[in-house]
Amino acid sequence: MHVLILGAAGMIGRKLTARLVADGNVDGRRIERLTLADVALAEPPPGADGQVEVVAADLATPGEAERLIEARPDLIFHLAAVVSGEAEADFEKGYRVNLDGTRALLDAVRAGHEADGYHPRLVVTSSIAVYGAPLPEPIPEDFHHTPLTSYGTQKAIAELLLADYTRRRFVDGIGIRLPTICIRPGRPNKAASGFFSSILREPLVGQEAILPVPETVRHWHASPRSAVEFLLRAATLDGEDVGPRRTLSMPGLSATVGEQIDALRRVAGERAVRLIRREPDESIMRMVQTWAAALDATRALRLGFAAEGSFDEIIRVHIEDELGGSL
Amino acid sequence: MHVLILGAAGMIGRKLTARLVADGNVDGRRIERLTLADVALAEPPPGADGQVEVVAADLATPGEAERLIEARPDLIFHLAAVVSGEAEADFEKGYRVNLDGTRALLDAVRAGHEADGYHPRLVVTSSIAVYGAPLPEPIPEDFHHTPLTSYGTQKAIAELLLADYTRRRFVDGIGIRLPTICIRPGRPNKAASGFFSSILREPLVGQEAILPVPETVRHWHASPRSAVEFLLRAATLDGEDVGPRRTLSMPGLSATVGEQIDALRRVAGERAVRLIRREPDESIMRMVQTWAAALDATRALRLGFAAEGSFDEIIRVHIEDELGGSL
Repeated sequence: MHVLILGAAGMIGRKLTARLVADGNVDGRRIERLTLADVALAEPPPGADGQVEVVAADLATPGEAERLIEARPDLIFHLAAVVSGEAEADFEKGYRVNLDGTRALLDAVRAGHEADGYHPRLVVTSSIAVYGAPLPEPIPEDFHHTPLTSYGTQKAIAELLLADYTRRRFVDGIGIRLPTICIRPGRPNKAASGFFSSILREPLVGQEAILPVPETVRHWHASPRSAVEFLLRAATLDGEDVGPRRTLSMPGLSATVGEQIDALRRVAGERAVRLIRREPDESIMRMVQTWAAALDATRALRLGFAAEGSFDEIIRVHIEDELGGSL
Repeated sequence: MHVLILGAAGMIGRKLTARLVADGNVDGRRIERLTLADVALAEPPPGADGQVEVVAADLATPGEAERLIEARPDLIFHLAAVVSGEAEADFEKGYRVNLDGTRALLDAVRAGHEADGYHPRLVVTSSIAVYGAPLPEPIPEDFHHTPLTSYGTQKAIAELLLADYTRRRFVDGIGIRLPTICIRPGRPNKAASGFFSSILREPLVGQEAILPVPETVRHWHASPRSAVEFLLRAATLDGEDVGPRRTLSMPGLSATVGEQIDALRRVAGERAVRLIRREPDESIMRMVQTWAAALDATRALRLGFAAEGSFDEIIRVHIEDELGGSL
């Protein structure tokens, strides 16, 4: 099969790529070709052979989406997005990438469908940012989408488009509403949620981290490893089992910042915890207060999606996958 | 003040125009100028004087939205839409008019805001088609939007855009989620819901009408007169009272087709009822089964919106407003 990853140079894109290259197949179907697309050239992972090709492409540029699906990939992962902080700071860029880019992709697939019956599985990542306060806890899956950021608005619109294009049989779409991914490896990005990872990631390697919110803040988390598992599960689900409501709330771990810090203490000791510096930030606090603390993911759990059960486990995943297995 | 009506040639647009011309003001503010825009030239109502101007414009054509808001109307009613049946039959036209047109309008207002602080009240009509089966009865206002038509998808997206552009303070938007408008005067349009009006409108003037669904079908209705009242209320609401969830479910009357027919019998007698010919249509039945039967409109009721309490009243409104007051 031919797999296309859009947003392959991002954190989840790189992890998904490494996993696909290591597995060599998706649910038993051999990967003959793997196309990595992003605005910047993605780095093929070590061990990748001739089956991997790298393409620089901006979905929102006219003609680019058509070019990307010209070879009719059987499975498309659409992970490309401008993150929440950036979409809030640059209104036009957020709409161009997150809305116009997604719609261009859907329309290119539709044109393929109309030309030759093309009908790929398309997995799109959505976000808990589709929800906006005041929120029940946990948020039932039939709760309305009243995003309080432009990013959340763009993701909510993408969910609607995915459902309609799937209903019209132009594409076989599955959306997954991701928890905040924690612990994000590498450098902080522009997401306002970055501190949830920083306060663990930096202390684990002896560096200071800044905590801009009180320890009582509760949020919804899953590890990068779980995110890759979610994507693979979404790639192979039977669409009939999903029904017309094509986007699923992913399972996660509901935890307070205090619980994160307790887990850090258990795994890495008090010395690590002392590296967290409190620096309250009113603007981040205002945003975070409007975010989801817990989701009802019953539907996804029934379909075989699973996440971590404790923050100790999330930290151990990070140590195994990013720090060579030990501190 | 300067009022702009987009979609002024449509049924509700014409009724709103007539009302504004008759009133000469909106909530005490004198209407100095009234611009009627539509893809076809709207007909100014009898009694309109020099303050009324008529413009042919297609919002989705580049530059048209900017041209329409060049004179900085204080109040904009955006009623222009491709209806449900047509948006389903012509996928591209539906998205072009209902999504791209609305977004072009919002972006034109945003450009005005950025140029000179322009910040008009924008009233946008949405629809119960944002909801898709299976549905609770009544549908709570915090129920998610899972439209099962492209029209409903486009309206749900417009609601999201309106909320985000309002949150960013580019515009002062209010959306109103209209019930099915009954009794629509004039000729049937391409809406699949047309029979709800036909089965009353035609028999009231001695003509035959076709009923494609069983009498047990329950739906959510309000008269054209109520629709105009909703628009005027939305035009003058204090945005602070509405909060960030900018679209309101409008009140309506939940009634079965059987109850509609009973009301017809009470108002116009058995002879009128006998003009309804049963002609079951599977495709209309399938669509109607996915529609909302009743909405919880508590929030709108609190804000002063009101609809009819019985179908007898809806029929009497039609007789008064369309048939000169008597049968």
